[in-house]
Amino acid sequence: MKKISLLILLMTTLAGTAAAQELRNFAFGRQPIVSPEITENQVTFRLLAPKAYEVRLYGSWTADYRSSLAMARDTAGVWYASIPLPAPEIYTYSFIVDGVMMNDPSNVIMQRDGTRYLSVLLVPGGISGYYKEATQRGNVRTVWYDSPTIGMQRRMTIYTPYGYENNPRGKYPVLYLLHGAGGDEEAWISMGYTRQIMDNMIEKGEAEPMIVVMPNGNPWQEAAKTYGLPERQFDWRDPAFANLYVNSIVKDIIPYVEKHFRTINKPEGRAVAGLSMGGGHTMAVTNLYPGMFGYICPLSMGIREGQEIDSQLQAIKKAGYKLYWVGCGDQDFLFESANALHQALERNGLEHTYHVSGGGHTWPNWRTYLTIFGKLLFK
Amino acid sequence: MKKISLLILLMTTLAGTAAAQELRNFAFGRQPIVSPEITENQVTFRLLAPKAYEVRLYGSWTADYRSSLAMARDTAGVWYASIPLPAPEIYTYSFIVDGVMMNDPSNVIMQRDGTRYLSVLLVPGGISGYYKEATQRGNVRTVWYDSPTIGMQRRMTIYTPYGYENNPRGKYPVLYLLHGAGGDEEAWISMGYTRQIMDNMIEKGEAEPMIVVMPNGNPWQEAAKTYGLPERQFDWRDPAFANLYVNSIVKDIIPYVEKHFRTINKPEGRAVAGLSMGGGHTMAVTNLYPGMFGYICPLSMGIREGQEIDSQLQAIKKAGYKLYWVGCGDQDFLFESANALHQALERNGLEHTYHVSGGGHTWPNWRTYLTIFGKLLFK
Repeated sequence: MKKISLLILLMTTLAGTAAAQELRNFAFGRQPIVSPEITENQVTFRLLAPKAYEVRLYGSWTADYRSSLAMARDTAGVWYASIPLPAPEIYTYSFIVDGVMMNDPSNVIMQRDGTRYLSVLLVPGGISGYYKEATQRGNVRTVWYDSPTIGMQRRMTIYTPYGYENNPRGKYPVLYLLHGAGGDEEAWISMGYTRQIMDNMIEKGEAEPMIVVMPNGNPWQEAAKTYGLPERQFDWRDPAFANLYVNSIVKDIIPYVEKHFRTINKPEGRAVAGLSMGGGHTMAVTNLYPGMFGYICPLSMGIREGQEIDSQLQAIKKAGYKLYWVGCGDQDFLFESANALHQALERNGLEHTYHVSGGGHTWPNWRTYLTIFGKLLFK
Repeated sequence: MKKISLLILLMTTLAGTAAAQELRNFAFGRQPIVSPEITENQVTFRLLAPKAYEVRLYGSWTADYRSSLAMARDTAGVWYASIPLPAPEIYTYSFIVDGVMMNDPSNVIMQRDGTRYLSVLLVPGGISGYYKEATQRGNVRTVWYDSPTIGMQRRMTIYTPYGYENNPRGKYPVLYLLHGAGGDEEAWISMGYTRQIMDNMIEKGEAEPMIVVMPNGNPWQEAAKTYGLPERQFDWRDPAFANLYVNSIVKDIIPYVEKHFRTINKPEGRAVAGLSMGGGHTMAVTNLYPGMFGYICPLSMGIREGQEIDSQLQAIKKAGYKLYWVGCGDQDFLFESANALHQALERNGLEHTYHVSGGGHTWPNWRTYLTIFGKLLFK
């Protein structure tokens, strides 16, 4: 009796909240739907959909984006499907309910990939050890900066390592970390798990404490997901378009960061890395500004067969650099372009690492690359 | 021909991204689904679901959470429904596809309300002028702080006003802004539009430039949406439980903020406001620490009929304060408790404002209250 009135009191106080829903489920004996549920050898997904006639499951653990798995229905209207436990990683998945893709309402962890939201499955162990919260965690901020080069106020995400605030005399190196087409200033921190990866690497002593700057590489967007900031119109075919952003990195972003943070303001204190389009930006900014960055890491990107890059690579060689690290998956649709970049680096006598992994043009690869080249920076 | 090969090149480069999807839609003549679409007098919602047999629309513009609207289907399998344009505000809505609630896949703006994600409709004009991006925008950071009181490292969100970084000698007052049950350190910044509201009020000269600190009021959670931080078990019925967090505000959070930010470290420089459970925290922290905060604003919360609070209010009166501002909707299920607080303040002779609005226990009310009491702080 006392338990029931406490329950009623709580439900009244919390009415309309998620906690109230949980209490209602508890009070009225309906088990909450658990999804995804990881057991020893498998993962089970569940969706309450008593009126649906077909529910399917699609997840990024299968490379074939056309394949989905039919789910079965129990007598209570809960649809379920199990898959063998995939290798440790972060996967995204969706349900397809009577032909419509949707997220898993029982799973609070979601990621935004460009304009789509996807439910997240994290399989522990292995690489996922870098996605867990470390004991010592850095902070993340979003800042607006003026970009006279582009003619906008723009936004970027900045990670400062654990201890930065309590070390007022310390100066830190900076990694400029660039996203791909379809991403924005939130991509690396949300899909890329940059904070968690950096926290874990730094805590273990594998990586140097560093600041990580994640700008928005789409110069027609002031910022992701805002209201009242109209996008600008650019002509995509205008060659000036690509360099507009690349120039703004050196002319607008680096000066802002080196003014507002305690940074090591020389090439040995600057790294640039980027995936896909951001790999293109990485090459463009180091080609245009040789000697600006000591560490250069294009990921899942390269050059066109026969693209003239020799004079630019020679300029980088002459200016000096500490690391040129190229990463690409052998299933990546840009693998040949990465091979061409590797060959150009060889041909021009630039010492470099060419890291060929399995897999394709995917976040598991980009996160993993960060755990590899991240350990080589600023040493 | 040239246009097509550019398209193919772009699609190859962007494969798998949202941009590629848009290009495919463009290339193959399928119009992208526009939803929601605001026209002069109405809003139209659309969902491509050719295999569904029933699609319904539910939105927060109707107060009755059981009511939803049947959508119609066109021959291409696009379901659609229009509603009269509701008053300017931020609304949340869902589709119900063959009985299953889901978000609008054509709408990139979503909000997380506790464990649920909801699609967002923003109707411009009126109050929504405060939700737009101002010209001068503040920055937002999430920081981890030690809470010896609770025995955890915890996370909070901190807003710094425009110009804070470029004003190294300026000292700022601080608003501690507390969320309700089911919320966390992201609630006020995402559902509450705190950054946009503060930016607009400060830019217009309506509010003083201030720092806003948004902690996590659930002491069993280290932080929202993390992996590898187990929640702590507390006994909800233990009276010490409630004060654990309230004590941590004064013992852990305020010292962190006043150490790491340029703040005005006296009662005239400190305000506390909170909604629902956070309104309870607001009263508890000011009752327990009279004289700590000059500005006290409980929202959609009050006291139980007959609750002994006189000695605590007398202590606040004696210590002195600048503002006691109570806001509540006349449809709020806690309206009577707010009335009881108002009467207790009257009875004890504490000057205060009792702001009674329409509506209930809702974010439109809480955002609106921020635009009202926010202008009264630190003046």
